[in-house]
Amino acid sequence: MPVGTAASVKGVHQRELRDEIDPDIILSNTYHLFLRPKISILEQAGGLHKFMGWDRSILTDSGGYQVYSLSANRKIKEEGVKFKSHIDGSLHMFTPENVMEIQRAIGADIIMAFDECTPYPCDYNYAKKSMHMTHRWLDRCIKHLDNLPCKYGFSQAFFPIVQGSTFKDLRIQSAEYIANSGAEGNAIGGLSVGEPAEEMYAMTEVVCNILPSDKPRYLMGVGTPINILENIALGIDMFDCVLPTRNARNGMLFTAHGTINIKNKKWENDFSLIDEEGTTFVDKEYTKAYLRHLFAANEYLGKQIATIHNLGFYMRLVRDARKHIIEGDFSSWKSMMVKQMNKRL
Amino acid sequence: MPVGTAASVKGVHQRELRDEIDPDIILSNTYHLFLRPKISILEQAGGLHKFMGWDRSILTDSGGYQVYSLSANRKIKEEGVKFKSHIDGSLHMFTPENVMEIQRAIGADIIMAFDECTPYPCDYNYAKKSMHMTHRWLDRCIKHLDNLPCKYGFSQAFFPIVQGSTFKDLRIQSAEYIANSGAEGNAIGGLSVGEPAEEMYAMTEVVCNILPSDKPRYLMGVGTPINILENIALGIDMFDCVLPTRNARNGMLFTAHGTINIKNKKWENDFSLIDEEGTTFVDKEYTKAYLRHLFAANEYLGKQIATIHNLGFYMRLVRDARKHIIEGDFSSWKSMMVKQMNKRL
Repeated sequence: MPVGTAASVKGVHQRELRDEIDPDIILSNTYHLFLRPKISILEQAGGLHKFMGWDRSILTDSGGYQVYSLSANRKIKEEGVKFKSHIDGSLHMFTPENVMEIQRAIGADIIMAFDECTPYPCDYNYAKKSMHMTHRWLDRCIKHLDNLPCKYGFSQAFFPIVQGSTFKDLRIQSAEYIANSGAEGNAIGGLSVGEPAEEMYAMTEVVCNILPSDKPRYLMGVGTPINILENIALGIDMFDCVLPTRNARNGMLFTAHGTINIKNKKWENDFSLIDEEGTTFVDKEYTKAYLRHLFAANEYLGKQIATIHNLGFYMRLVRDARKHIIEGDFSSWKSMMVKQMNKRL
Repeated sequence: MPVGTAASVKGVHQRELRDEIDPDIILSNTYHLFLRPKISILEQAGGLHKFMGWDRSILTDSGGYQVYSLSANRKIKEEGVKFKSHIDGSLHMFTPENVMEIQRAIGADIIMAFDECTPYPCDYNYAKKSMHMTHRWLDRCIKHLDNLPCKYGFSQAFFPIVQGSTFKDLRIQSAEYIANSGAEGNAIGGLSVGEPAEEMYAMTEVVCNILPSDKPRYLMGVGTPINILENIALGIDMFDCVLPTRNARNGMLFTAHGTINIKNKKWENDFSLIDEEGTTFVDKEYTKAYLRHLFAANEYLGKQIATIHNLGFYMRLVRDARKHIIEGDFSSWKSMMVKQMNKRL
């Protein structure tokens, strides 16, 4: 899922996103939308799809992660989380109940449970207590949703989130709790928060063995192209990450043959196309030398081009992964790709 | 001519520029290209068209205006202008001769004479001396060009520039000198530098009465939609201006019914299209409320949308002007449009 934090995948027109990158679904952030444009505006627009002009699927996170990572003076209690807006310092509170109401009003196709995302590293006792609170919050979310009809004439899927930091026993407990909720899809949170990749994979493996395989498994906030392939191998079906878009804006291009820092002088007079194998128009219409110049001259078109390239590459990667799973040679293809992509060009 | 200062119309993909805005020609700045990406890179690319992927016409200015407006420590002498780069402080010199060489190497379709653009207000004696130097520089440009073949397999048109500040007698002298050079097109410089619109129109009128009517007359650096219509009425055929792009990035939209500051709170819940009469995809795909949100959230997509809208509007305006000239009702159409556009919505 490309990330459209504030109702925009940064620097990409909706029609480019649809026609060139072609994802089935994008992610938007409840925390950001709640603060700006505010829920009342989204309601007047008839929901987020109409507001931003995007008629494919959208998933909203629950705002939990951003409350912990962005806002000042957050206070986590059983009732919910009090926080200060990072924009204007205004005070707000998120609870399992009002976050369900907010996500109903935003109107995404998939909405997420309100959870606490623990940091890395995390004290075992804190992780355990936090996990149990996340489970109690889940029950409150489900109970509240039952009495809260959808708003815009279509239903919303609801995904609960496995927590438990990097502790195997907690992850097992949490995965069992989440699997028992019988949701339409299940997510894994609290990873990709600074832990080594091997710890992430270990947790994914443990959890994927418990979460039902006939329902989508969503690993939140992951990751590099290699992270994505390794986690697909472990059973993950859905990802979201700011890496392809954020790193694009810093001049990093992902390709099937490794990463490119387009700001490097070596590309100054390389008049080859951005990515011969690329699937988007930018790959075929612009050269590396031109893109390098745009970054050097701080022209925003450079960020736009890099963003479209990276998102196009990520979509191609997961489409290829699906193809190789169906064809039965995913594992050997993955090994080859991981080796190939683990380079700096 | 949309302005693509550093080989990019800021925030607009080349294919959007071609398919949505559809200008016959764009402008790029010699001063900027000379400093970045540098002439050697453009030569290796096979000229600016290939470097930026733009196969329609390009005009480059002579760098004169930017030397005066952007660089530090410029020293104007008969020989040429010494200046410090505004990017890295490096020292350079522009002369009529090397600016012709630089513009040959950039490879635009129309190149401009090296001139001194006087500020407003300007002392009469300074304006007179400067005008005569600009004329001598013109002779040096023409002489040097005669021995300087074009580089990339096509010829370049050369336009000289009328100066003379806001003094009628100087403008007449200069227009006669420039008209006598027999160039393929002629430009008027030194206007739109802070003088009242009425003084600009007075100078344009005097000069247009002298410059041949069967060759394009190009008024440099102008202007607002109203300025453009008034100057078309006086005989101008070509314009370039950063207003539609620069003001777009500040949230100002030009429309046939007046200007919109999209940052204003009044647009917060206006879910009407950006411009019902607009010709580009952004006019039909985004609402004012969404665009207002993008500016409030500092999302770059807002600047992209506003830029495409404004450039589309400017192109529509000059196409309509051409149509009404041909149909013979330009004057009454212009009066109606000037009245209509002179509003803040």
